[in-house]
Amino acid sequence: MNEFDIIQRFFANKITLQHDHVIIGSGDDCAVISLPDNFQMCVSTDTFVEGVHFPIAANAELIAARLMAANLSDLAAMGAQPHSFTLAITSPEFTEAWLQGFSDELNTWVEEYKIPLVGGNLSKGPLSLTVNIMGMLPCHSAILRSGGHIDDDIYISGHIGDAAGGLALLEQNSIRESATKKSTIEKQLPLLDRYAKPRPRIELGIALREIASSAIDISDGFAADLKHLCQASDCGALVSLEDLPLSSILIKTFGLEVARGKAVQGGDDYELCFTCPKVYADKVQELSLSLGLKLTKVGSLCPGSDVQITDKQGRLYNETEGYQHF
Amino acid sequence: MNEFDIIQRFFANKITLQHDHVIIGSGDDCAVISLPDNFQMCVSTDTFVEGVHFPIAANAELIAARLMAANLSDLAAMGAQPHSFTLAITSPEFTEAWLQGFSDELNTWVEEYKIPLVGGNLSKGPLSLTVNIMGMLPCHSAILRSGGHIDDDIYISGHIGDAAGGLALLEQNSIRESATKKSTIEKQLPLLDRYAKPRPRIELGIALREIASSAIDISDGFAADLKHLCQASDCGALVSLEDLPLSSILIKTFGLEVARGKAVQGGDDYELCFTCPKVYADKVQELSLSLGLKLTKVGSLCPGSDVQITDKQGRLYNETEGYQHF
Repeated sequence: MNEFDIIQRFFANKITLQHDHVIIGSGDDCAVISLPDNFQMCVSTDTFVEGVHFPIAANAELIAARLMAANLSDLAAMGAQPHSFTLAITSPEFTEAWLQGFSDELNTWVEEYKIPLVGGNLSKGPLSLTVNIMGMLPCHSAILRSGGHIDDDIYISGHIGDAAGGLALLEQNSIRESATKKSTIEKQLPLLDRYAKPRPRIELGIALREIASSAIDISDGFAADLKHLCQASDCGALVSLEDLPLSSILIKTFGLEVARGKAVQGGDDYELCFTCPKVYADKVQELSLSLGLKLTKVGSLCPGSDVQITDKQGRLYNETEGYQHF
Repeated sequence: MNEFDIIQRFFANKITLQHDHVIIGSGDDCAVISLPDNFQMCVSTDTFVEGVHFPIAANAELIAARLMAANLSDLAAMGAQPHSFTLAITSPEFTEAWLQGFSDELNTWVEEYKIPLVGGNLSKGPLSLTVNIMGMLPCHSAILRSGGHIDDDIYISGHIGDAAGGLALLEQNSIRESATKKSTIEKQLPLLDRYAKPRPRIELGIALREIASSAIDISDGFAADLKHLCQASDCGALVSLEDLPLSSILIKTFGLEVARGKAVQGGDDYELCFTCPKVYADKVQELSLSLGLKLTKVGSLCPGSDVQITDKQGRLYNETEGYQHF
């Protein structure tokens, strides 16, 4: 298969979702897209490198899922609705099995999030993938990292730490060992799933346009990402360690202490961390009910520039460094 | 230097060109950009891999220049005006010298083409770079590959084959040999320059909106790219070998036969190949004068699906395969 055959068979003729705002899709020098009146576009780019952002020899479905989740999550953190994306794949070889698995999984994301693929690039080289994602939102409604104010409450969606737990299990390879009991594997599956198929919080992001003062997605780790938000908003944060939303399976699998470490430091969950003025506390809970998604208050913004995570006894929790990709 | 230091020092605080249509630049989860009323956006992505798209150990300036040229050229081929771009760099290490050279050169392109950098990504891994470029143009004015009609004339801007000549010289390393006479080096410099600093034909593309029926940029090689245009326009092409615009320095350096091979097969020139209804022949020549850019008629579209390059004796020129990146 040459480049053009691969593009036709696994991408252009297979991932065919169209939208009114895609005037010309892939196949020309550029795609041509439009934006509704009074809307703005959000743009972000993310690269995944083998051995850095996903394990060596990870299966193609996992790569596709995590790549799309990471990129969609950036849109969610702005309150944007998916518009379209381009995809550049560099790989030492393009086998039919890999392309089949990758494009199948990619297509499920395209269909679920209604985000057309409008262009791309295939190159030979060490395995890495870059998505450039575009979203749209009404003018002046973007949720920025810089909008937080002192005394705003800090919230986290869902649970954090699960994906880091799932990755640890994957790296230990424990679920693949034949000695592992079937019942243990089944119990750990939710954590693996949270790593392999994170859920970008698009719906939540859109709903937060009305009430959030700032937002960031948790990709580098809660403490590190909250630190970015604080720097942009020019304030500090006080967080209650016990209030961090941990799943019971994470605690059962790793114990409370390790689970907390994963929640504070682990990235890869793609949950949202957002701030709201205190007066919106009821609205946040209404939103939680209507979305069927846990939204947990974990602290509030404060004067200063530090992110301080303390337990009920007032002791400072020390591990505040997130995962750095290099 | 960690990731954030590098981003601040060499990108965010250095490449600072802003535009009215960049609402929020890099530094948040996404950039936020706008599009004037009644405009559409063009989007394209290109990856450059070391050893495939540029020589191993190529200097950082050459990489930056060719990366920007390749991407801007895709906009030129649509008739689009540069809007903004994102940049993802993966590299085994980020040295100060490399970052300095790369970002210096990048900034000259940003300033010259008035195209703000609105986001990016740095990762550790084997050297490769992906740009996602965005352009804009009035609704319904994009020049597509598919717009060509039988009997339309085929034109090429500038000269073709020079960049392939320059790359060949670079690979032979001949100019670095101390035995090479200074006068020879100076004579070859224009070819090296054409490889190292191609000129994307943005102004030409914008002017062609009014008169061209179709266009493509010459990146894979003239014959291969014209073939793409013909496939999209559902017709064939007849090209006169002797009419291909070759520079005298290319002929002097390599001889007429090799020069023609490079013109037909060599990519990397980033000239435009476009088609016009015959009635616009005078307008093309006026445009050539006003831009100070040679625009050469090399043939015309015809029924069928083949690209036939023939000499004055009617003999078919056989080498019609362009460079495949894998």
